[in-house]
Amino acid sequence: MPQIIPIDDPDDPRIEPYRDVRERDLVGRDGLFIAEGAVVVRSLVVSTRYRARSLLLAGKRVEALGPMLAQLPPDTPVYTASQPVLDRIAGFPLHRGILALGEKTAIPTAAGLLESCGPVARVALLFGIGNHDNMGGIFRNAAAFGADAVILDAGCCDPLYRKAIRVSVGATLLVPTARLAEGEDPLALLDRFGFEAVALSPAGSETLAALTPPRRAALLFGSEGPGLPPALLARARSVRIPMAGGFDSLNVATTSGIVLHHIASGQAALDPA
Amino acid sequence: MPQIIPIDDPDDPRIEPYRDVRERDLVGRDGLFIAEGAVVVRSLVVSTRYRARSLLLAGKRVEALGPMLAQLPPDTPVYTASQPVLDRIAGFPLHRGILALGEKTAIPTAAGLLESCGPVARVALLFGIGNHDNMGGIFRNAAAFGADAVILDAGCCDPLYRKAIRVSVGATLLVPTARLAEGEDPLALLDRFGFEAVALSPAGSETLAALTPPRRAALLFGSEGPGLPPALLARARSVRIPMAGGFDSLNVATTSGIVLHHIASGQAALDPA
Repeated sequence: MPQIIPIDDPDDPRIEPYRDVRERDLVGRDGLFIAEGAVVVRSLVVSTRYRARSLLLAGKRVEALGPMLAQLPPDTPVYTASQPVLDRIAGFPLHRGILALGEKTAIPTAAGLLESCGPVARVALLFGIGNHDNMGGIFRNAAAFGADAVILDAGCCDPLYRKAIRVSVGATLLVPTARLAEGEDPLALLDRFGFEAVALSPAGSETLAALTPPRRAALLFGSEGPGLPPALLARARSVRIPMAGGFDSLNVATTSGIVLHHIASGQAALDPA
Repeated sequence: MPQIIPIDDPDDPRIEPYRDVRERDLVGRDGLFIAEGAVVVRSLVVSTRYRARSLLLAGKRVEALGPMLAQLPPDTPVYTASQPVLDRIAGFPLHRGILALGEKTAIPTAAGLLESCGPVARVALLFGIGNHDNMGGIFRNAAAFGADAVILDAGCCDPLYRKAIRVSVGATLLVPTARLAEGEDPLALLDRFGFEAVALSPAGSETLAALTPPRRAALLFGSEGPGLPPALLARARSVRIPMAGGFDSLNVATTSGIVLHHIASGQAALDPA
């Protein structure tokens, strides 16, 4: 079992990383992040790419969370506090009653992730997704449909922002992810590892429903307003989701769910050999 | 053109319905609702089931919004104010710069909506959807995939709540909707109008991908936690979306997008006769 360390003083320096977590997300976090709620903290504890530096939880929850705490390395500090002290540390009423301070242990490259995929695989590539709700939603769908990786361009927001983690129900800690290196050409990279690029666009030349999923599928999503960079769209196979006349386009997280479902269903029928 | 009425005093009684709109949503609205932003207000102006009682907008936007204002009945008051006065009326910085006070003009019944559908149709039935983000997201998807109606049980929240309208990008004002009458059996109702009920459930007996869409499809969605009422599930054809091992279920709005896309794509291939 890890060490249980009771905290009585909201100003205790040992719980400094948890102080005013809302503001902290906005001012930078030195490569660390905050996971919130039992489901998300559990994803962190079992992750192979992230580790919990410490936990902070309501003292009354220690017993119920015992099995999860037992999975922590024995030197991980587990701070406990009463609910009023917890609320004062966090800076808002912490109904979820548990926070963890996480850090990356392994930083994969996009090439490394693509190389490690099996013969039947699906990955998502995101371009300019700046909204944390959408980022969290896409990761949630990626986990639900067994995506092998989510690869981000430089214009994407941080999937480890507290709200993105929460909306993803912890999936941003579970699905392998990497950023494209500066100047790295995503289509050349995909080609090198035998992935077929499928670019989603309202102006796509074929419909999603008619698409036979490639064995190694790379699904390219842009942000809701500007969409995918035109230079990228011009070089990839483009696919559209037909919509009823005149209505605004789908939310990008919903789009990712529709596309991943179609690809996952189609790939399930493929011979894995 | 409607009457343009400048407002200089935030306490002017004529703009009372717009005062502190955030709080107002929580305390009841006497059957009225607030639409926010140009896209949503435009949906209200063109709607056949709702009408704008009045508009309130930043004076500087009158010219740009002229074509929309010209579509209003001539007796509709259009109040204008400076940005500071507007912010004080609304009770928060009103970046969107335009609000409208809406009311229902026609209240359809579920039976009436089902009866008016064509030979190939798709409707969604929602049970216990209490989250305004999910409600808005489902309506957005219903509009995108041309659903003929969205029917709500008594446990669903109000699609005309300000946030639900905004998340739906105005779709809650465009897609025909009705509540089930008290004691009305939804499956008997669907059967009466020749709709096949398809109940979405993680424990569904067939997969969505293998489902051939019925000509008249009724898609049943429950809330994320409890799901559909067991008594309903036991009497309907049940369908599941297969997910990767051990991951939490999909968000219900995303699920609605996946299901509506599958049904709309399949129905597009049917002979409409």
